[in-house]
Amino acid sequence: MLTKFNSVLIIGMGLIGSSIARALYENNITSNIFGLDSNMDVIKKCLELDILLKGETDINNFSEQFDLIIICTPLNSYKNIFSYLNNYVSEDTLLTDVGSTKVSVIEDFKNHVNNKNIKFVPSHPIAGLEKSGPQHGFSSLFQNRYCIITPINKDNKYTDKIIALWESIGMKIEKMDSKKHDRVLAMTSHIPQLIAYSVVTTSTELEAQLKDEVIKYSAAGFRDFTRLAGSDPVMWRDIYSNNKDAVIEMLGRFSEDLSTFQKAIRNNDLKFLEKKFTQSREIRKIIEDMGQAGSFDPTEKKN
Amino acid sequence: MLTKFNSVLIIGMGLIGSSIARALYENNITSNIFGLDSNMDVIKKCLELDILLKGETDINNFSEQFDLIIICTPLNSYKNIFSYLNNYVSEDTLLTDVGSTKVSVIEDFKNHVNNKNIKFVPSHPIAGLEKSGPQHGFSSLFQNRYCIITPINKDNKYTDKIIALWESIGMKIEKMDSKKHDRVLAMTSHIPQLIAYSVVTTSTELEAQLKDEVIKYSAAGFRDFTRLAGSDPVMWRDIYSNNKDAVIEMLGRFSEDLSTFQKAIRNNDLKFLEKKFTQSREIRKIIEDMGQAGSFDPTEKKN
Repeated sequence: MLTKFNSVLIIGMGLIGSSIARALYENNITSNIFGLDSNMDVIKKCLELDILLKGETDINNFSEQFDLIIICTPLNSYKNIFSYLNNYVSEDTLLTDVGSTKVSVIEDFKNHVNNKNIKFVPSHPIAGLEKSGPQHGFSSLFQNRYCIITPINKDNKYTDKIIALWESIGMKIEKMDSKKHDRVLAMTSHIPQLIAYSVVTTSTELEAQLKDEVIKYSAAGFRDFTRLAGSDPVMWRDIYSNNKDAVIEMLGRFSEDLSTFQKAIRNNDLKFLEKKFTQSREIRKIIEDMGQAGSFDPTEKKN
Repeated sequence: MLTKFNSVLIIGMGLIGSSIARALYENNITSNIFGLDSNMDVIKKCLELDILLKGETDINNFSEQFDLIIICTPLNSYKNIFSYLNNYVSEDTLLTDVGSTKVSVIEDFKNHVNNKNIKFVPSHPIAGLEKSGPQHGFSSLFQNRYCIITPINKDNKYTDKIIALWESIGMKIEKMDSKKHDRVLAMTSHIPQLIAYSVVTTSTELEAQLKDEVIKYSAAGFRDFTRLAGSDPVMWRDIYSNNKDAVIEMLGRFSEDLSTFQKAIRNNDLKFLEKKFTQSREIRKIIEDMGQAGSFDPTEKKN
């Protein structure tokens, strides 16, 4: 089933929002994309890039209704967005989002929306890059990546439309309960990111001279952490404030494991270290075999 | 100053050893490279790849003396290698290595070598990849990367030759005290790697079902950690057993910082999180500006 949309509103025209716009045009899902962003510079950039029919910083400046609305903003803005959509929408409208937590999003929706025209199917397309802003978006970002859908109710008609939407831009779909989603993502995304931030913080709080050396010799492994740490600070701040419980649970487990490694190093337990390191390599192999590893080029791109 | 070598012996023909061989040929530094590796399959592979004049698993099967010997094996094999070189070498020979710790290497050398023909200049070319084995080596691995030299004594003649060697294959040279080297590398390399192992370990010890999901959705950040964790287990085991003090010191600092983040999440201290995340992004920017970031392609390579 391929649904075409007469008009689509994307709220938040950063890396993800602008990539969705490009992908929808490219796959002929719609020819009319409207953009809403609190930052006028972002709207201007999108108009320059010719990826919006019309852009605004206030929804009330639009006169149109939309078939589909996609929220692509940091999580702490959802309450406000749900409130104004609750007032604005006057016709049947499919609503989805790209937020990295789902329990909080569903709670915010239930607390702020009673408008029966709004059919909300929460989504989380797992795709991204450490860059932010519409100039870095690209249409193939979603190709071959997973999108997790966490439906609120059993109305399959709307869920199916949202599934078709993500599939049309190349994604593989999984349905999941929102609580499970938040635990899985805590481990695959929120914890790695927090640890990356923490490693970078530790290095920057070293004595000044040592800090310079750390940056200089970052090719030795540290740079992989800084890549993650290059992501949008506000987006991540909001993720931690909306997935507190799962993050703190997983962080507890991680700290235990790290202590076990520390103890093994202190006691020179070479067998333990080699065994654990070998097991980790096997996990890497599985991810590569699944085609989910991406590829890293250790040389520099020519500019 | 460019020194050419009549004959070079590389001990350990894995990713690094085989890449050095390729780079030395390509830059006309020598045309005679001999290889020693405890694994006959590795030697056979290198002969197939045509990157060795002759390969052996026992140094006593050679009849030649060498101008230059480069050790490219895991650190715990150094004691044994120094012992047999101490017996074998009968002419003036320049010796260097690529080990990731330098204090332990120098100590091993002093404890096992009294042969005055051996002129040792410890090196650490900071370049690598998560792959292992000679089939993954390539000559441009060292291009534009740093090589740290930690000279034992003030004999500049030999140090200068080793500097010229690494420069000839594209490296930038820094001299450093061995203790400082080990602290810097603990932070830029050994800690990130250990944390990567630890994150992968935590994820694999989750309930079976959750573990499968973590692997499936690894594109969300986790995969960056598994990339590091794909490295050679024995090499890393030996690094931790030879840089215990610096690793444990830096790990202590990291754990403190991680606890601070955990507390901020628990207390919903959004200001703190945003500030720290923004600072981390600035560090990333510096590394990119220095041309030490490499480049990551989030799409899959076509095979």
